[in-house]
Amino acid sequence: MAAETSLKTIEWVGGVDGFVRMIDQTRLPGELVHVEIHDPPAMWEAIRQLRVRGAPAIGIAAAMGVVLGLRDVNDTDVAILRKRLDEVCEYLSTARPTGVNLTWALQRMRRRADALGQSDVATLRRALLDEARRIRDEDAAMCHAIGQAGESLIRPHAGVLTHCNAGGLATAEYGTALAVCYAAHERGRPFRVFADETRPLLQGSRLTAWELQQAGIDVTVICDSTAGMLMRRGEIDLVLTGADRIAANGDTANKIGTYSLAVLARAHDIPFYVAAPSSTFDLSIPDGSHIPIEQRDPDEIRRGFGRLTAPPQAKCFAPAFDVTPAELIRGLVTEAGIISPVGTESISAALGAREACQNIWNRR
Amino acid sequence: MAAETSLKTIEWVGGVDGFVRMIDQTRLPGELVHVEIHDPPAMWEAIRQLRVRGAPAIGIAAAMGVVLGLRDVNDTDVAILRKRLDEVCEYLSTARPTGVNLTWALQRMRRRADALGQSDVATLRRALLDEARRIRDEDAAMCHAIGQAGESLIRPHAGVLTHCNAGGLATAEYGTALAVCYAAHERGRPFRVFADETRPLLQGSRLTAWELQQAGIDVTVICDSTAGMLMRRGEIDLVLTGADRIAANGDTANKIGTYSLAVLARAHDIPFYVAAPSSTFDLSIPDGSHIPIEQRDPDEIRRGFGRLTAPPQAKCFAPAFDVTPAELIRGLVTEAGIISPVGTESISAALGAREACQNIWNRR
Repeated sequence: MAAETSLKTIEWVGGVDGFVRMIDQTRLPGELVHVEIHDPPAMWEAIRQLRVRGAPAIGIAAAMGVVLGLRDVNDTDVAILRKRLDEVCEYLSTARPTGVNLTWALQRMRRRADALGQSDVATLRRALLDEARRIRDEDAAMCHAIGQAGESLIRPHAGVLTHCNAGGLATAEYGTALAVCYAAHERGRPFRVFADETRPLLQGSRLTAWELQQAGIDVTVICDSTAGMLMRRGEIDLVLTGADRIAANGDTANKIGTYSLAVLARAHDIPFYVAAPSSTFDLSIPDGSHIPIEQRDPDEIRRGFGRLTAPPQAKCFAPAFDVTPAELIRGLVTEAGIISPVGTESISAALGAREACQNIWNRR
Repeated sequence: MAAETSLKTIEWVGGVDGFVRMIDQTRLPGELVHVEIHDPPAMWEAIRQLRVRGAPAIGIAAAMGVVLGLRDVNDTDVAILRKRLDEVCEYLSTARPTGVNLTWALQRMRRRADALGQSDVATLRRALLDEARRIRDEDAAMCHAIGQAGESLIRPHAGVLTHCNAGGLATAEYGTALAVCYAAHERGRPFRVFADETRPLLQGSRLTAWELQQAGIDVTVICDSTAGMLMRRGEIDLVLTGADRIAANGDTANKIGTYSLAVLARAHDIPFYVAAPSSTFDLSIPDGSHIPIEQRDPDEIRRGFGRLTAPPQAKCFAPAFDVTPAELIRGLVTEAGIISPVGTESISAALGAREACQNIWNRR
């Protein structure tokens, strides 16, 4: 297992009265600093401020945040615990709107509580901690499977372009788009990655370049605007990104700039793939027009690095995400394999197969 | 005349023993600071460090830099002055490689000296200062004419996307792409501009947004990666950029990211125009493959804002420019009118007409 995978993006420390430890990703690449999170407001802030980010990692953070919210419930009345559970889920669900893993994880915690019915408070708390840990472990397993499913997409000596950070730092381990890179690298295949720096918060240059360097993968940072030139020069053979939410038809919300890459890839006849676990699919919405797009603080553009880089009162348009229509996506790399072509039927068929896998995991 | 046009991007102060005063554009938008330039090395540094930037403004800076280089020639031997002239031209031509206005202006200074033959040193120095000032004044006149030629491209309530800074700060006055905006604004036409921030040096957010705000034009800053999403939402009706060098067939070198915008514009059926004076055309090269592309210091990406934003040793690919092929350009807005369609013949015909204009100017 490569060095990078031993990084603990987020973990639970101790028993039901324990806490969460996570890498503060806002401090990378300058410093590798861990923060401890002891209550839901701190978790909400960590998600909002992108100390933890990446749709799958946010899902894990939310599930663990639920357990934190139940820590001081000493009452023996299960009804009080259930009420608190609802409140905490409601609260954490507001931290970020676009990624679906956040609500997916919270729903899963609620369902687990429902399944346990009128068990006593201690049993419920323990079961919910187990569930949060299971979400983390399953995410690691899914990411590993994504890597295996997608690695053959990277041909020897290929140039792979990625955007934002869809790596180990965005998930429990391995990542999604980067899991594919790690799996190809583990097979000893030579290739190079171009990492879009990914304005405004530079997850590509700060996190992706850092992760790939740690793993010994050849990585070159570029400004987001340089992707087109590289494609025209024939240096890109594959574009591979993660996802924050995938609608039933395959329309995909991901970091702002992903749509532009997909259009550019199409214009240069370069395959564009999205890698994501099944927890990132939202089959309740038919297409991408139903995905809420988070708007970020304009100061992330105007003062993103502590220095004024635009007139102080300049208007900014600062969406965190855009939506890439399914027709621009050659395939979706999931833990159940590659879905291609991308459409409502192929997705529904593949995720049905995934459900069967899931049941096997759950029976372990 | 709008407020912004009274900004003196670059000017000569005093007589033949005078100096250059320019806005230090690296300090904007935080501070409006002027620097004085007294010798060629200081001018070389100012061009290289982008204190003065924009192809037309660099041409003016180079011409004035030549005059600075002759300031301490007190000898009465014209041969010594001519030798110094050659040395200074050679030296300044290395400051930046892509924009053609730099070499164009230096050649023009040499031609002026040639035309004066064996005049005495004092006459030559005065004539060369006059020539540098004429380059500046002609640039202002050409930019004004570009605005008039292009203003009808901006329809009422249009969304105009621009990249980098092709404004008054990039030229003597008015700008090129922004001259078109200023001319439409002077006619009272309502429209809005989206300014790509333009990584890595943020000329869009630092300079274009600042200039347009000063002029009272509605401007919104976006990250470069957001352009595609805005086009898909139907918010962009026109893409308008400047140019650093235009080959005989219309292939255009401009700030890195311009090519991506042109591809995106084509995919969304949005007209893409380039605005530039005739001094930006290089008819000596048949197409864009002959344009040298400047590579910048990777630390402009890794530490662009004084803070480490990538691993310190991260490889970066940092071209300052890319080349947009002529077939993606709907038209070239020049002081001689709009050249459309764009091709070797249409350009040659239009610039022939321009030469006639130029002769009229020169006879003034």
